[in-house]
Amino acid sequence: MTMKKIMNNPDQIVDEMLDGMAFAYDSIVERIPETKVIHRKHEKNGKVGLVSGGGSGHEPAHAGFVGKGMLSSAVAGQVFTSPTPDQVLEGIKAADEGEGVFLVIKNYTGDVLNFDMAKDLAELEDIEVESVVVDDDIAVEDSTFTAGKRGVAGTVLVHKILGAAAEEGYSLKELKELADKVVANLASIGLALKPATNPEVGKPGFELAADEIEFGIGIHGEPGYRREKLQPSKDLAAELVNQLKKECNWSAGDSYAVLVNGMGATPLMGQFVFMNDVKKLLSEQEGLELSFRKVGDYMTSIDMAGVSVTLLKVEVPKWIEYLNAPVDVIGW
Amino acid sequence: MTMKKIMNNPDQIVDEMLDGMAFAYDSIVERIPETKVIHRKHEKNGKVGLVSGGGSGHEPAHAGFVGKGMLSSAVAGQVFTSPTPDQVLEGIKAADEGEGVFLVIKNYTGDVLNFDMAKDLAELEDIEVESVVVDDDIAVEDSTFTAGKRGVAGTVLVHKILGAAAEEGYSLKELKELADKVVANLASIGLALKPATNPEVGKPGFELAADEIEFGIGIHGEPGYRREKLQPSKDLAAELVNQLKKECNWSAGDSYAVLVNGMGATPLMGQFVFMNDVKKLLSEQEGLELSFRKVGDYMTSIDMAGVSVTLLKVEVPKWIEYLNAPVDVIGW
Repeated sequence: MTMKKIMNNPDQIVDEMLDGMAFAYDSIVERIPETKVIHRKHEKNGKVGLVSGGGSGHEPAHAGFVGKGMLSSAVAGQVFTSPTPDQVLEGIKAADEGEGVFLVIKNYTGDVLNFDMAKDLAELEDIEVESVVVDDDIAVEDSTFTAGKRGVAGTVLVHKILGAAAEEGYSLKELKELADKVVANLASIGLALKPATNPEVGKPGFELAADEIEFGIGIHGEPGYRREKLQPSKDLAAELVNQLKKECNWSAGDSYAVLVNGMGATPLMGQFVFMNDVKKLLSEQEGLELSFRKVGDYMTSIDMAGVSVTLLKVEVPKWIEYLNAPVDVIGW
Repeated sequence: MTMKKIMNNPDQIVDEMLDGMAFAYDSIVERIPETKVIHRKHEKNGKVGLVSGGGSGHEPAHAGFVGKGMLSSAVAGQVFTSPTPDQVLEGIKAADEGEGVFLVIKNYTGDVLNFDMAKDLAELEDIEVESVVVDDDIAVEDSTFTAGKRGVAGTVLVHKILGAAAEEGYSLKELKELADKVVANLASIGLALKPATNPEVGKPGFELAADEIEFGIGIHGEPGYRREKLQPSKDLAAELVNQLKKECNWSAGDSYAVLVNGMGATPLMGQFVFMNDVKKLLSEQEGLELSFRKVGDYMTSIDMAGVSVTLLKVEVPKWIEYLNAPVDVIGW
């Protein structure tokens, strides 16, 4: 089977992507020369720097969230591959404004190791670093690249809330407290209609029959928890919402932020239909107050077709203000 | 072949999509009850209303561009089907703030007829209406649903520039002059890697072999001008840029806005790689000044994989200001 992609050499795909992005949006971001770091052009103002990153293939995550009000820099690995510690260190150095740097790490073994190593290296250079590990995917415990739960689309809400707080002047310690609280209230789960093909591999990460979908997939082709026949959107939504309900144990009247996230090759039409079904279940049936809502491609898996739902229990009303605060980034 | 989509009943797909959108973004837009009209919540301020719309399946176009600084309302037809005149009239009435309403129409026979009929109906209700027909697709003359050239992704730049001008207080007559000038300087061309499947039809609009691409396709499955084997991004970009060069007849130093647009199932990674190749050709090789750049899904064709390139010759420097002016919409 031919891999059908807009690309040149797979070895150069990340570099060409970063260059294309930096060129297209040069008022917002720049690529730090000789690195895989996209850094914001927003004037430094002596606040805590915010850094994220990970394997490529999840665009707009993470470079699309670099800019005023969100990330200071994002570090890109090869496709579905953790960035190396030296690259993360470059991201940290670019983000440092003298008040320390906070790292948002998705829970994959390679990411956690490499970001931790970069943290140690940064501290040798007298940059104070704190971090949080996001593990919002409730689908499975332990997976292909993870001990514990995977970090997926909820990470983008962490970027947004911490970004607004950093912009407001939170200290490194305050950001750490906020991050821990947000991550503890975050839950995501997804499904795939079609697998992704990593350009560096050349064939799909898994196979699904023409009438099959899979619940609980990861964002790197990791398996989910069940395959079923394709079914209407409302039934797909009911399955994901039921899983979230078991995890979140909510009560009517609870306030939640909800993100319906496309996986990269899912038309917006289907994503809005899905949101309409999620609304009926969460708002009309369960009585939740959906105090922030967002639909679109935020944490993708290259050309996977599918959606995920992320819920954030809003423990502190101010989080909604942070989610709504204006930003100047490419992908929010 | 099973149609694999996130949907319920195809007959309800547009209604459910509009409801999902209005729910998710209720601070920006509302759905006018019993209509297919998405209207902005931005306070009326006695300016000219701006209305667009067309068949569904091109999301975020057009409802995703409703809001402060862009459209006043967008009217949705069924998938790939023009909205009816009575629905366009509802959109016009919602947009009317006493200073007249301007219509942005993509050049398809049904759209032109139905928007024109709605214009006549609105004038019977004493609403002054002007319009422009966008025909930016240089790929072919006359096509499945069109006499003349098709209207495609360039329409979004028309929304943006006219939206900023309307917000600035342009009169209906001034908007008409501006619109004519912008449309005369607009050119787009696209290519497909995979066809779209209309949910109301159930099978792809055309077929492409596993190693084939098609240059010059439309956004409703209309044929292009040539099929070839899949080739590297830089060669795809060279073909589209060569076609644009023949049409635009530019000179080094000319100022252009450039939009690389994804067709709905094209990962951002490929779009940014493509932009990087377009940059090399237009900026480094041809010496154009690319004074505005944008990459992403703006005018899609449901789940088609492919890209288009739109160029707007910047005759008036102020157009760049309008393209960069802040907006509060879902999809820009």
